[in-house]
Amino acid sequence: MEHSTIGRDTPQVTARDKVLGRAIYGGDLKMPGMLHLKVIRSPYAHARIVRIETEAARALPGVHLVLTGEDTPTRLSGVAHKEHRILATGKVRFIGEEVVAVAAVDEDTAREAIDCIQIEYEELPAVLNPDHALLPGTIEVHHGSGNIAHEYDIVRGDVDAAFETAVAVYEQTYETHSQYPGYLEPMATVAWQGADGRLSVWTPTQTPFLQRMRFAEALDRPASTIRVVQATTGGGFGGKTVEECNSLICAWVATKTRRPVRFLNSRLDDFQGARASVPERIWLKMGVDRNGVIVAKDVRIIAECGAYAGLAPEVLQVSVMRSDNMHGTLKNVRANAKLVYTNCPPRGAFRGFGGPQMTFCVNSHLDVLADMIGMDPIDLHLRNAVKAGDVTVHGFEVGSSGLSDCLKQIRDETGWDAKRARNKGTGIRRRGIGMGAAIHVSGNRSMGDWDGSTVTLKMSEDGRVHLFTGEADMGQGAYTMLAQICSHELAIPLSHVTVMPPDTDTAPYGLGSIASRVTMIAGPAAIKASREMLAKLMSVASGKLNVPVDGLQFADGRIFAGNAGTSDVEGKGFSYAELARIYIYRQGGEGLQVTATHDPSTVMASSSQYGNVAPAYSFAAQAVEVEVDMETGKVIVVDTFVSDDCGKALNPLAVHGQSCGAVAQSIGWTLYEHLQYQNCQLLNGNFADYTMPTSDSLPDIRSGIVESNDPNGPYGAKGASETAIVPGAGAIANAVFDAVGVRINSLPITPEKVLAALAALTKAQFAKVES
Amino acid sequence: MEHSTIGRDTPQVTARDKVLGRAIYGGDLKMPGMLHLKVIRSPYAHARIVRIETEAARALPGVHLVLTGEDTPTRLSGVAHKEHRILATGKVRFIGEEVVAVAAVDEDTAREAIDCIQIEYEELPAVLNPDHALLPGTIEVHHGSGNIAHEYDIVRGDVDAAFETAVAVYEQTYETHSQYPGYLEPMATVAWQGADGRLSVWTPTQTPFLQRMRFAEALDRPASTIRVVQATTGGGFGGKTVEECNSLICAWVATKTRRPVRFLNSRLDDFQGARASVPERIWLKMGVDRNGVIVAKDVRIIAECGAYAGLAPEVLQVSVMRSDNMHGTLKNVRANAKLVYTNCPPRGAFRGFGGPQMTFCVNSHLDVLADMIGMDPIDLHLRNAVKAGDVTVHGFEVGSSGLSDCLKQIRDETGWDAKRARNKGTGIRRRGIGMGAAIHVSGNRSMGDWDGSTVTLKMSEDGRVHLFTGEADMGQGAYTMLAQICSHELAIPLSHVTVMPPDTDTAPYGLGSIASRVTMIAGPAAIKASREMLAKLMSVASGKLNVPVDGLQFADGRIFAGNAGTSDVEGKGFSYAELARIYIYRQGGEGLQVTATHDPSTVMASSSQYGNVAPAYSFAAQAVEVEVDMETGKVIVVDTFVSDDCGKALNPLAVHGQSCGAVAQSIGWTLYEHLQYQNCQLLNGNFADYTMPTSDSLPDIRSGIVESNDPNGPYGAKGASETAIVPGAGAIANAVFDAVGVRINSLPITPEKVLAALAALTKAQFAKVES
Repeated sequence: MEHSTIGRDTPQVTARDKVLGRAIYGGDLKMPGMLHLKVIRSPYAHARIVRIETEAARALPGVHLVLTGEDTPTRLSGVAHKEHRILATGKVRFIGEEVVAVAAVDEDTAREAIDCIQIEYEELPAVLNPDHALLPGTIEVHHGSGNIAHEYDIVRGDVDAAFETAVAVYEQTYETHSQYPGYLEPMATVAWQGADGRLSVWTPTQTPFLQRMRFAEALDRPASTIRVVQATTGGGFGGKTVEECNSLICAWVATKTRRPVRFLNSRLDDFQGARASVPERIWLKMGVDRNGVIVAKDVRIIAECGAYAGLAPEVLQVSVMRSDNMHGTLKNVRANAKLVYTNCPPRGAFRGFGGPQMTFCVNSHLDVLADMIGMDPIDLHLRNAVKAGDVTVHGFEVGSSGLSDCLKQIRDETGWDAKRARNKGTGIRRRGIGMGAAIHVSGNRSMGDWDGSTVTLKMSEDGRVHLFTGEADMGQGAYTMLAQICSHELAIPLSHVTVMPPDTDTAPYGLGSIASRVTMIAGPAAIKASREMLAKLMSVASGKLNVPVDGLQFADGRIFAGNAGTSDVEGKGFSYAELARIYIYRQGGEGLQVTATHDPSTVMASSSQYGNVAPAYSFAAQAVEVEVDMETGKVIVVDTFVSDDCGKALNPLAVHGQSCGAVAQSIGWTLYEHLQYQNCQLLNGNFADYTMPTSDSLPDIRSGIVESNDPNGPYGAKGASETAIVPGAGAIANAVFDAVGVRINSLPITPEKVLAALAALTKAQFAKVES
Repeated sequence: MEHSTIGRDTPQVTARDKVLGRAIYGGDLKMPGMLHLKVIRSPYAHARIVRIETEAARALPGVHLVLTGEDTPTRLSGVAHKEHRILATGKVRFIGEEVVAVAAVDEDTAREAIDCIQIEYEELPAVLNPDHALLPGTIEVHHGSGNIAHEYDIVRGDVDAAFETAVAVYEQTYETHSQYPGYLEPMATVAWQGADGRLSVWTPTQTPFLQRMRFAEALDRPASTIRVVQATTGGGFGGKTVEECNSLICAWVATKTRRPVRFLNSRLDDFQGARASVPERIWLKMGVDRNGVIVAKDVRIIAECGAYAGLAPEVLQVSVMRSDNMHGTLKNVRANAKLVYTNCPPRGAFRGFGGPQMTFCVNSHLDVLADMIGMDPIDLHLRNAVKAGDVTVHGFEVGSSGLSDCLKQIRDETGWDAKRARNKGTGIRRRGIGMGAAIHVSGNRSMGDWDGSTVTLKMSEDGRVHLFTGEADMGQGAYTMLAQICSHELAIPLSHVTVMPPDTDTAPYGLGSIASRVTMIAGPAAIKASREMLAKLMSVASGKLNVPVDGLQFADGRIFAGNAGTSDVEGKGFSYAELARIYIYRQGGEGLQVTATHDPSTVMASSSQYGNVAPAYSFAAQAVEVEVDMETGKVIVVDTFVSDDCGKALNPLAVHGQSCGAVAQSIGWTLYEHLQYQNCQLLNGNFADYTMPTSDSLPDIRSGIVESNDPNGPYGAKGASETAIVPGAGAIANAVFDAVGVRINSLPITPEKVLAALAALTKAQFAKVES
């Protein structure tokens, strides 16, 4: 169809506002009489709050409110564990926890007020790390928890018997660390409560309706009395869902004053308050048979959620089992995973949602096992790659799999075989190539037995369309995708579709932009709604033209008779605008509006974590070529190619953008970014010391698309935003090994670790020579 | 039902915001970088614009834009007559017409800029009044119009033959004048255009979607690229629909700059820019037979629309024929009505919409005719009063009529018979009583073949409801009415229903608050939507409780088994909140939302103005007791009782409020308010000189409700906001006659006119004595 952009590079519909600097972010909204909010954060990892002196602050001119934990609703809230209050009450549990909130006429006054507040703490022993947490006699972060927030135990098949059949078995312990989401826009919220008692919260969020539900719980008030409007969102990466506290505190303070309240995180606030990813120590044992088939996997994980559990239990569930599903061959799995409280800052959702942690280990492991049985690692991956029609060990029903094609693509695009075979030489800078593969869900039936999405379309009397959704665009391109679909189905220009950013008052109920679900689930809803809209237009045209619907055609925003000999002799038919007006202005008419919902036929995971939770699964493979400096230990990525099986690239430009961003973020996690804690205190909460890779540190990131045509996806598409972040760490670690023969099992792969490993290797080689 | 407020005095749901001063009116919205708009208005009634010098103004620091008619879209716009540009171009046609618009950083700068602009006009002869307009050779206001904007010619039955059967025939010419809507809030608009090219207009309006349609036409752009949001509206009275130009100019200027633009009418701006009511000169001849049956009516009207026609043709249509329909007996009607252009300011829609003008004459006329045949005027009205089941001379199908009951009620409540019979005495202050009756539509199928309304209900997971409508609340209580219905039908507290003010982006398409249509048409849509919502909840409960729907009951926001012996043994059932969550969170679930439309089975009037245009007709009767000062001629209303047949008073408090306001406004029109023009120049555009009645000038206004239970209305209700303004003028004129024996046929009834009439009467009486 002439107007269709499906499958074509399409600039994002939100781009113009952003490029012109006219998009309204949370921090841009200014309201008359608006107050400015600041919080005091705990300087202790664990302490009893003895006394808070606020009188001097309250007396300052321009200070409207000084609030402490005692002022917060007593109801505890949280995703699964109800353990959090809006401000710390009684105790603080991590350095950075919000203790006092001040609202004043401007930021300076709020800051001055904070300086006047005296807080007396009685310091308590802190739980410093997971090992410490699990030592008998260690103080508990939450009373009665034994410092265990959650535990998984999964057994499928007969793992011990299966290991007996292996020709190679390898076990190793890996350490993965925490990554800050690093969105360009720190959290910023404006909230106000009207005289009618309704609370409005203007905030960047991936999940407006889940935020509303969470505010309702934490503020202990009915959800419908709260309106959450998604402000333009400058990146989310999992960090702008229901864990961050900027919006929560701002919303709550707005209920305490008659003025609008603005809370803008400084970057330090954001480092301290955001939920970074969950660090995990993973012991992994895997075995392969002579054909390279993975016969068994045994895994034990100790993961750290910090002071509050948040979404970390769900993240850990993904680490425990998701990567198993990319190996259609794998039948025997045993896993134990513990999520442990410490007095470090809470950790939670992050792009990839637990996938990167375990997949780093699995990809490292498979590289070793391939070597042990003399097989190329890509061949080993191919041997085990899950195929369309497979039902995996955990019950995933794989409708499409481009994993093998992804693996072949990275082999072809990088000259893998030649590079893998080359002599590493003896120079100071040595190159190596490594690879990894990954699986991710497109949707996840985990929030109660619904993973649906609803799209409402309204056609105005000019024949153009407003599209309403409860899902959010954080920059990933959701609105562009929805507009493309609607434009394609109705054969109208993209500019004739206006996607409305979600507002819980007016948008259809939706779960939001998590689990790479939007294309997969809102996409089909948009198709369905568009077709229902077209059917309505067709029906009106049929009546007016006196031609049966199946004799009608549509193009360019018009419906006309397809055949000669009809009353539509000139074949001009009617424009959608005319039809919309006819539809309204008739006996029994009404505005032209349709609503359609798509809820895939997936299931909730059983108590043993078994079940087909997603309507589709995306796959990726990545090869990375690194250069390792033997003198400094520095690892530089010199080339990378990531192949993304997104089913069908509805907008290749956006898919490439997502792939490149994911690769950059995975390189950051693997080599550069490191949240450094000392006794639970973050030492580098700023972009000077927390070294996210800039364009200088990144190669020209290459990416390719594999179109496996998912049977459940819109036009075959599935999720394309997350999978590509998953394989990078293992690929880099494997490339380092390929280059210099040392295997770094603890992230990040710092020059120090590489140098130490090289030194140990040299020592071992000398020892070998000497012995 | 316990929670039902239907039929009970219910404070308006919007009251709290307003009383606390926290409602956000058009003028309250402030946006960063907002510009302030001022216009230069024409000082000439008719002139050619020769030259506009704007350079000095443009050069002023802080001035962003200076725009003239040449900058406006060339497309002409208007309701029926396409004759208007956003700023005057080429010619000005009335004093006050907008010629230049200036946008500057603040109001002072805009004012200063205006002072720097030189406009050279070439004055043209002005068309001063309708008589002048129709003289041969008079210059035309619009080329080729002959100064006639519209003409009606209606003949039903055989008027001449019918007059032959009359025992009394009376003819008279009446003059009615123009009334300023006098809302407390002058027009104020804020508009801005986003980088995405969409235009948002935040404005008080009775008709958001019609405004959008009008902006689209005048700005020559697609409707869907425009968003109209109804700001809290401080009264409308017909003046805030599609004729006022404050919002139009503001919207257009916002498309010319990248900043938000605010245009706040001063009161003088508003007097000059608003559409006052249509002044009409009405020649009327009516005859009655010996039984008091009205046998024929002949009418000729010359009405003045001023410089642009706007809605005046529709207003005149109402004057021509609506009052005929309150006389079920009337079969013979002849009418000619001309709408005439002059160079006075444009006139248009006003509460009562042409009804007050003609009904003043008819009520005066019937008082005379009653006297001529020796009948009490109430008896004469009763003899002719239309009844339920009647089809009137113009095709109105009257489903309910409380007109007779209204007439009886005013007789009883005012001690009519005794007061009418009393001796008027010979004192300086003499009392008299008079009455009038009225009909008004509830809805009007006149905007194209649709007079429907759509209500969307969304239930949140807390069991509370958002209600969406395209109709507006200007203070008349529409939202309260809709909330009451929804609360009643669902058996939930009123506070659990949030009515969303219309926003054309998110509200269902609707015509807005005109023609007393909202209760009559949106009301049934709200009932239908509520019942569909309940059916959804019932269906979920039925499944969960395993009880058939007809075995379920609902109360207090819960659904439970009505009978023993069911699985719902404790009869607790489920709350709506639980059911809403169950409805969402299930295979195939979705947010709980329903949309229902009601479009009554009325018809568009035929080309001869025949047809049942409204689903119901409201009636009113009013008795007025006045005291006339024989020395000063001053008329004071000392008592009044208006009886309003609103079908069923859903909210008696609101009905009384509307009745009282209507009576006050009709007293103002009849006695006090007078837009004074000299050569088309308004002389008294302020509240000091334009004397709206204050509480000092008004009696304690009494009102009564007649419930005729309309078969088409929600719970029997019909419109209750407009009818009561219609009968007042005739009732006062009749009371003056009853008091002092003079009949004032030209409004307003000023002391000067009364004194002059008294003098003429005395002279005539002397002449009689002498002869």
